[in-house]
Amino acid sequence: MKNIVAGVDIGGTNTVIGLVTQQGDCIKEVSLPTQEDNDFLSFISRVASHIKSLVASVSNEYTLIGVGVGAPNGSYYTGEIVDAANLRWKGSLPLTKELSKLLNVNTTLTNDANAAAIGEMQFGDAKGMKNFVFITLGTGLGSGIVVDGKLVLGESGFAGELGHTSVKPWGRQCGCGKQGCLETYVSAPGLRRTAFKILADSIEPSALRGYAYDTLSAKKIAGFAQQGDRVALEAFEYTGAILGMKLADLVAILNPEAIFLFGGLSSAGSTLFEPTKRHLEKNLFPIFKNSVKLMPSGLKDKNAAVLGAAALIWQNV
Amino acid sequence: MKNIVAGVDIGGTNTVIGLVTQQGDCIKEVSLPTQEDNDFLSFISRVASHIKSLVASVSNEYTLIGVGVGAPNGSYYTGEIVDAANLRWKGSLPLTKELSKLLNVNTTLTNDANAAAIGEMQFGDAKGMKNFVFITLGTGLGSGIVVDGKLVLGESGFAGELGHTSVKPWGRQCGCGKQGCLETYVSAPGLRRTAFKILADSIEPSALRGYAYDTLSAKKIAGFAQQGDRVALEAFEYTGAILGMKLADLVAILNPEAIFLFGGLSSAGSTLFEPTKRHLEKNLFPIFKNSVKLMPSGLKDKNAAVLGAAALIWQNV
Repeated sequence: MKNIVAGVDIGGTNTVIGLVTQQGDCIKEVSLPTQEDNDFLSFISRVASHIKSLVASVSNEYTLIGVGVGAPNGSYYTGEIVDAANLRWKGSLPLTKELSKLLNVNTTLTNDANAAAIGEMQFGDAKGMKNFVFITLGTGLGSGIVVDGKLVLGESGFAGELGHTSVKPWGRQCGCGKQGCLETYVSAPGLRRTAFKILADSIEPSALRGYAYDTLSAKKIAGFAQQGDRVALEAFEYTGAILGMKLADLVAILNPEAIFLFGGLSSAGSTLFEPTKRHLEKNLFPIFKNSVKLMPSGLKDKNAAVLGAAALIWQNV
Repeated sequence: MKNIVAGVDIGGTNTVIGLVTQQGDCIKEVSLPTQEDNDFLSFISRVASHIKSLVASVSNEYTLIGVGVGAPNGSYYTGEIVDAANLRWKGSLPLTKELSKLLNVNTTLTNDANAAAIGEMQFGDAKGMKNFVFITLGTGLGSGIVVDGKLVLGESGFAGELGHTSVKPWGRQCGCGKQGCLETYVSAPGLRRTAFKILADSIEPSALRGYAYDTLSAKKIAGFAQQGDRVALEAFEYTGAILGMKLADLVAILNPEAIFLFGGLSSAGSTLFEPTKRHLEKNLFPIFKNSVKLMPSGLKDKNAAVLGAAALIWQNV
């Protein structure tokens, strides 16, 4: 019998569960809608029964030795999810306690981006790196920070909220209640907000003028940018300028070897990376110029969060 | 015979050398002008002979076991000072190599603010803390970051350059060549720049209107603020607003238990701490509200940098 770990990625829309080997292969995977249950305990029992079914299907070969969970506002120390903006259940949710009870195995929780950073270190292109930052660009902007080979958790386990650092004191309204947070500019919805701002301010003809706010995705904006649409390109330039400036701050503070960009928005490739890298270098304190690698994640988009969640357990085996 | 460590604080104006016991008592101290020598090696040999004299004066009781040095742009890894803006010698200066050669003891170098952070942890109010940030507010703004009980050095040993994170993309010219760096707003000269900006923009009567730029010190502005001068008070309000906002960013990234403020500007006390704390709390991501202590350094101003430099050696004994 070989050992297997369940990696669970709890997102605002879907929760993805995968069975992950010590080599980082995801041998079974299932996705379920996150917010179907009125109460959190029903959700946890649904997650537990999906894990049980997956494990049962491979029980001739594998034994479950632990469950790693990545979730927004997940604390490594307490095992609780605390007031996550994208989840319907508020307050402190005792995730690891309830899940361990149902499954009778060791369960570890952390912030979803932290989990992905661990996954990059365990299974991706950060293997052997001691100091790096992993950034997820999706509905929001999350980050996981590794210093001297260890994930930075902070005093209460909530470190890495780069998405909620300030770009402008009186800037765009953020879901967290603050204004001007980085993720209101640099994320899939942030790119759309920027595109709409440019459509309002300029008179440049653009394919984007045919889309309603509700139907214009970051993916579409990236597609038009790659076709040379000047408004779409300017939206990426602005996004890269803000991201580059904030990454330069992060380099000044942490002096990392590399910064990984991951998630929907990062799949725009050089359309995003080129302006980001240019503005990063422009804003670097001289001693750090040309010292930091800006790289795409080495993990396939599909499984990175799940692999990272599983790596929470595997890193201690 | 007891052991003793020499702590050396290399500043742009003076270099202070102290002999520090394992308990953090500075039993001998001397100050010399830093920039008298045309070449760096002459400076190092001057430092070495001052250390020798100090040690000779206590040689009946103590043996020198090491030298810790704090200096701008000092790298812990290479033992070199690299292109420090406030020093006349440019390029990479092999400090630990030369000093060890002359003194025949273990020599360790780090950034001056990093050294002070270690001093706070070893001898000051950060004793027992695992996660904190130490900020020096003087001619510039330096910082030392401790995560999980260890100083964050970064990939090349230059982490902690919080003073060169961006406040405004096209803001004030900084000595480092960039524009809008935090230390152009939050430092002793930054406060003066802010006061002059307010004098220009407002018509408020103020005692500050009687001073030339070259003669107005941060200490004088603090004095007038404490007497109720509204321009001086507004200058501290603006300084606290910017510092509070950037500290909130730092909390979002690192989730520390405490932030220590140290150095000339911090001696303004509540005149600086009150607006800083208020704006820090206002800008915090909800999960971090009321979680972080903003404190003055527990080390006496006079010896903190020297104690910190010595602590570099003592922490490994």
